[in-house]
Amino acid sequence: MREAEWIQRYIAPLVSAPGADALRDDVALLGATAEGTIITTDMLVEGRHFLPSDPLWTVGQKLLRVSVSDIYAKGARPREALLSIAWPTGRSEADFAALLDGVGADLVRYGVNLVGGDLVSTSGDLVLNLVLTGALNNGALPRRSGARPGHSIWVSGEIGHGGLGLAAALKDGDPTKMARYRVPELPSLEQAEAVSKHASAAMDVSDGLLIDALRMAEASGVAMELQIDTVPLAKPAKEATQALAQCIAGDDYQILLTTAPEIDLVGFFRIGTVCEGQGLLLRWQEKAIPLPESLGYLHGES
Amino acid sequence: MREAEWIQRYIAPLVSAPGADALRDDVALLGATAEGTIITTDMLVEGRHFLPSDPLWTVGQKLLRVSVSDIYAKGARPREALLSIAWPTGRSEADFAALLDGVGADLVRYGVNLVGGDLVSTSGDLVLNLVLTGALNNGALPRRSGARPGHSIWVSGEIGHGGLGLAAALKDGDPTKMARYRVPELPSLEQAEAVSKHASAAMDVSDGLLIDALRMAEASGVAMELQIDTVPLAKPAKEATQALAQCIAGDDYQILLTTAPEIDLVGFFRIGTVCEGQGLLLRWQEKAIPLPESLGYLHGES
Repeated sequence: MREAEWIQRYIAPLVSAPGADALRDDVALLGATAEGTIITTDMLVEGRHFLPSDPLWTVGQKLLRVSVSDIYAKGARPREALLSIAWPTGRSEADFAALLDGVGADLVRYGVNLVGGDLVSTSGDLVLNLVLTGALNNGALPRRSGARPGHSIWVSGEIGHGGLGLAAALKDGDPTKMARYRVPELPSLEQAEAVSKHASAAMDVSDGLLIDALRMAEASGVAMELQIDTVPLAKPAKEATQALAQCIAGDDYQILLTTAPEIDLVGFFRIGTVCEGQGLLLRWQEKAIPLPESLGYLHGES
Repeated sequence: MREAEWIQRYIAPLVSAPGADALRDDVALLGATAEGTIITTDMLVEGRHFLPSDPLWTVGQKLLRVSVSDIYAKGARPREALLSIAWPTGRSEADFAALLDGVGADLVRYGVNLVGGDLVSTSGDLVLNLVLTGALNNGALPRRSGARPGHSIWVSGEIGHGGLGLAAALKDGDPTKMARYRVPELPSLEQAEAVSKHASAAMDVSDGLLIDALRMAEASGVAMELQIDTVPLAKPAKEATQALAQCIAGDDYQILLTTAPEIDLVGFFRIGTVCEGQGLLLRWQEKAIPLPESLGYLHGES
């Protein structure tokens, strides 16, 4: 790998923001925001967060979308990205080009300016790190900790596509399902704006609906009661076990949020109610059901 | 590795900024700056950017300093950091604690708020990614491209400690020299403020004085004439070859800058003059000397 050449050939063409100074410098100037700038970072490792069989352009798209999802979940607009890559020695230039193709497509799709990064070589796994800034709408930053008893619980879209897609990818199955795992479909910018206007608490669903709902409950010091039969699912379920399997799979990248009880959120699905106490309470057609043993997918455990 | 536990045990105690929300959330709120926010990122890979024999607390310090160096070189004050770690499976918790000890010490030293990050596991090399923001002084952002014919060329301190220290570390030699390679001594905040007031162009010297001066010359569309016998050196040189060896070694983390000719910069060393043309011209005691074959250390080449 010749770092400087690859940067010029594949990364510099993706850069247009004046603050990036065409990647000729060691720092980028962030754009000013009237109502506050938020920042998030995600690191993806081959074999942990994506499969060696996933085409690298899909990995490039997923890398960007994982972070856009965090920004949308806070009701904000994505702004600037910094991309760092530890590239395995000897891996082909065509693979590198494919990765950056995917990144480039989604920079355009989500209106993100690439303003910096780093490119290094490694004898180990491919490691990708993306940093993304976002501009707050209305100055509002809904945290995980704002859910209050009586508030409604909502999700922005179907749960379970990530899990079904991963299962398909592991056995080289249905390409449409695989595609949803490799390149998650995010909520819309309009949904993100609704979050900034109405959410008392919000986060993205990345490790599974149940584990993420529990995290929100813990951060807020409340309990959450979820009507599992009202959760919109990738694969409609006749029984609770089929539904729960989708609610504990990761990689959904939908928004989980709470609002004051009087709010009616068009384009979202109401799935439960915040109540006093702690933990999760699950119901299926009005009857209480037990929590599954595992509540979600934990990348970090090994 | 249990990701969540290690974050709580070793990383959360380093976090105090309100915008970080105690790392309980997916995003951090950046502090507002009156005169602009800059951002930089560096990725370090074990075996490429540091040696497996380097103690991990020194790696933690170096990780932070490499980025503080970029911020200082732009005359700015370091602000917020995001730290991502790909941690090799099976590596000890004591090593992790040591790494974060080093990071924590230098967060305090340089007044940096840790506001976010990511922790993942890898079967490959240890990979570290640090993102650092900086607040501009005087609204000035000296780029690499601002050097003009007639301007003076300066460095902020001694050149060559990184190279001498690396040589010592590779043969387990002099501990004082090794220490300067493992944990570079940075310029002062006062020197960074002088850069914001006076520099027409500025960058940090990370890959070697000569290669970095050439990069500044190319970005500015000028030539640079360096009086090698006026460069402050880690090891005083009687002959040009001894001096040049130190001017092509990396990891110095001093500031290279240019100023209008009438400026006299106290606490910096004047080492040459910008002139029309392109490339580097080297002199030793008023006589022209040829460029060495290699101008610096390129981490990315392999």
